[in-house]
Amino acid sequence: MENLKTSEELRDYFLQIIEDFKNDNCEIHPYDLAQDLAKLRDISDEDYEFICKKMPSDLFAEILCEMPNYVQEEISEVLSDRKIANITSKMDSDDASMLIHNISQNDEEAAQTILSKLDDEDKEIIERLNSYEDDVAGAYMQSELFKVKLDENIKQSLLRLKEQKENDELDNIFHAHIVDENNKFIGSIGLEELILFDSNLDYKDIPEDKFTNFSIVDSEDIKEAVEMFTHYNLSALAIVDDKNKLVGRITHDDIHDIIQQIDTKQLYSLAGTNDESEQEESMYLIGRNRALWLGVNLITAILASVVIGLFDATIQSLVALAVLMPIVASMGGNAGTQTLTVTVRQMALGEISYEDAKKIIYKEVVISLVNGFIFAFVIGVIAYLWFDIALLGVVIAISMVINLFSAGFFGAVIPIFLQKRGIDPAIGSTVILTTVTDVVGFFSFLGLATLILL
Amino acid sequence: MENLKTSEELRDYFLQIIEDFKNDNCEIHPYDLAQDLAKLRDISDEDYEFICKKMPSDLFAEILCEMPNYVQEEISEVLSDRKIANITSKMDSDDASMLIHNISQNDEEAAQTILSKLDDEDKEIIERLNSYEDDVAGAYMQSELFKVKLDENIKQSLLRLKEQKENDELDNIFHAHIVDENNKFIGSIGLEELILFDSNLDYKDIPEDKFTNFSIVDSEDIKEAVEMFTHYNLSALAIVDDKNKLVGRITHDDIHDIIQQIDTKQLYSLAGTNDESEQEESMYLIGRNRALWLGVNLITAILASVVIGLFDATIQSLVALAVLMPIVASMGGNAGTQTLTVTVRQMALGEISYEDAKKIIYKEVVISLVNGFIFAFVIGVIAYLWFDIALLGVVIAISMVINLFSAGFFGAVIPIFLQKRGIDPAIGSTVILTTVTDVVGFFSFLGLATLILL
Repeated sequence: MENLKTSEELRDYFLQIIEDFKNDNCEIHPYDLAQDLAKLRDISDEDYEFICKKMPSDLFAEILCEMPNYVQEEISEVLSDRKIANITSKMDSDDASMLIHNISQNDEEAAQTILSKLDDEDKEIIERLNSYEDDVAGAYMQSELFKVKLDENIKQSLLRLKEQKENDELDNIFHAHIVDENNKFIGSIGLEELILFDSNLDYKDIPEDKFTNFSIVDSEDIKEAVEMFTHYNLSALAIVDDKNKLVGRITHDDIHDIIQQIDTKQLYSLAGTNDESEQEESMYLIGRNRALWLGVNLITAILASVVIGLFDATIQSLVALAVLMPIVASMGGNAGTQTLTVTVRQMALGEISYEDAKKIIYKEVVISLVNGFIFAFVIGVIAYLWFDIALLGVVIAISMVINLFSAGFFGAVIPIFLQKRGIDPAIGSTVILTTVTDVVGFFSFLGLATLILL
Repeated sequence: MENLKTSEELRDYFLQIIEDFKNDNCEIHPYDLAQDLAKLRDISDEDYEFICKKMPSDLFAEILCEMPNYVQEEISEVLSDRKIANITSKMDSDDASMLIHNISQNDEEAAQTILSKLDDEDKEIIERLNSYEDDVAGAYMQSELFKVKLDENIKQSLLRLKEQKENDELDNIFHAHIVDENNKFIGSIGLEELILFDSNLDYKDIPEDKFTNFSIVDSEDIKEAVEMFTHYNLSALAIVDDKNKLVGRITHDDIHDIIQQIDTKQLYSLAGTNDESEQEESMYLIGRNRALWLGVNLITAILASVVIGLFDATIQSLVALAVLMPIVASMGGNAGTQTLTVTVRQMALGEISYEDAKKIIYKEVVISLVNGFIFAFVIGVIAYLWFDIALLGVVIAISMVINLFSAGFFGAVIPIFLQKRGIDPAIGSTVILTTVTDVVGFFSFLGLATLILL
């Protein structure tokens, strides 16, 4: 659709799509339609509203859940509450609860009105899903799944599945999840196993070793679920409540998104910003969040300046020190960032744990120290040749070794310590680290210069 | 297994596992066994070798493919070529080709010997998979899949599937991939659809709209495949050659790993290091790669020092400039990193594209400029109060605005430009950016000071 540039072309394109959809003949994937609708929204509010209003609810349900949060947030300004309720009722429960959550961010009242127009069952499910904390497994689950009883006949259950699929109630089915008469979770059987059994059998006739029993309690951290998916190569994971009753499932495609979200958060945190605010459309909100971190950085930069200020007399008497001093700080900052980033990432991927702390710190200190000696030699020679003062070369070399040692040590210790204290090691650790490498860099360089050169 | 600390305990544990496995009674997931085997390898080379030698090939095949590359690389030093060939023959083709690739990194001759001991079919498949470039879809595929012909009977095909599953030839099946008599790919049908049809039908009797036709050519960039998985929520993707012949598939669990690999690479590149070398066991290799980037950083730091050196007379006459100058550079570096990171990430996630370049640059410049004015005011007042020189406050304020403007502008332009030129925008962009913010920061601050204060 890269050719469609004008709002007229996009509008006509969507009118055709709506026509095709009504004739059961629309072959474009909702994701691609969402991209084009977002494009139309960028160009023309008027045409965007026109198309949104024209769009059948079941088609819009598929498209809307592919659109970014800020578009969902303001959908109540474009469509009537009744239509949004209709759209919501066509969505899977995880998408529906996300939509209502997003709308409530913008207009709590609209969200409540929409909820009140849903049937009791939908309403209850959405309210339950939205009552979970953001970071627990339950917040990401859907309640739609293929549930069967042990004494159920396979063929009967498949007829039920067929009906539910035809009514668009179920999709993306990978397992039959088996429960007892109290809805307690027993295990799952993959369709790839199930399809090989005689459908006249009951589920209880299937040998137990064909069942898998991966499940997670709804209140557990979503990261635990992500780990189960990545370690055990799951397609879907059963979610149970604290009484082991089956309440939902998470499918692998949700996990792709969660992995990318977690990684984005980590990357942004290390760079001193925040994934949630960066997804806002408002430049004010993005800028305000970044200003917060820049403010913290300003304080640490002033702290470094105070350290430099202690040595103003030294600098006055040898201005070459002012010329060279950023080099030591910069090299420390860079070496520290390397260590910090690798440590944070390997902890996040579960490749290293607190037990390995000693080993990691040792490794990082050795690497940093060896590089410290190499660059100490290089910069020592350069400083000597540049300013023709041999002892200046010695001073910068020694302070380079000291600062790269601290870079390696603190680059490893800071995230390990934060993680151990239950704090996300990506958030704020960069600022703490550069404070250390700046202060140590300036202090060691100017302090040694005062001792040795003057 | 967190309690098993000594090598004796771990050795006994694995002897029990081997016993259980032989009795078809091992319920521990290979991933968890791989973790424990890695632990044993860390503690005792001797016990590790003893267990590796004892382990039945089919069990070891499952465990070894969950172990890190560097363990696979040196497995030829632990086991005989014959046993490794045996293990390789039990693996899925993607895991087998990865193992041979890893062994060849360490000992090309051993890899060739092992290949020569495989049967011709296995050997040919592994050689084909390893002939792909690292970053194309074909390099990640497996050749094992459930392939059916249009005129084939569903029940017949399922009997074949059952047999292949019982022989451990097939696993993780989500679709039947349908081909014509020339092996040309026609489409796929999900098991969740297939299970609902009367198994007495032929595939050609299934209505065509139940088929999906997602496929990708083996020579396409793996990132394209990742995008198809994340956009279209696929479970598996058919891989075809340039003549549309079906040659393999990629499954969703591989995509989890690839997403995490891509994200790790991005994160490490931005921090001035490299994901591949960080995965090495040797501190020498890790340190050497980091030294490379530190060397580049040293050059840019010296460049910044040269800029400072231009103004040594100015600093000599007002040493407060030396005290304050790192603040401007540091704030520019931080604001620039925020912009750079967000731009790189949003391009990688496909949220923004080259077409949006103007919009992104505008957004980033506005945010940076507004923050520039805020922090210019703050630092201007602080500098005035600290040194009691009003014009010093004016100088630092103006240079803060200038540097945060460049930070926003170059933080957005550098990655967009690199991406447009086909260069990975995460690699090297941080160093280029901090060179800009250092040089602009020092030059504007000291230059303005020379003009205004002296």
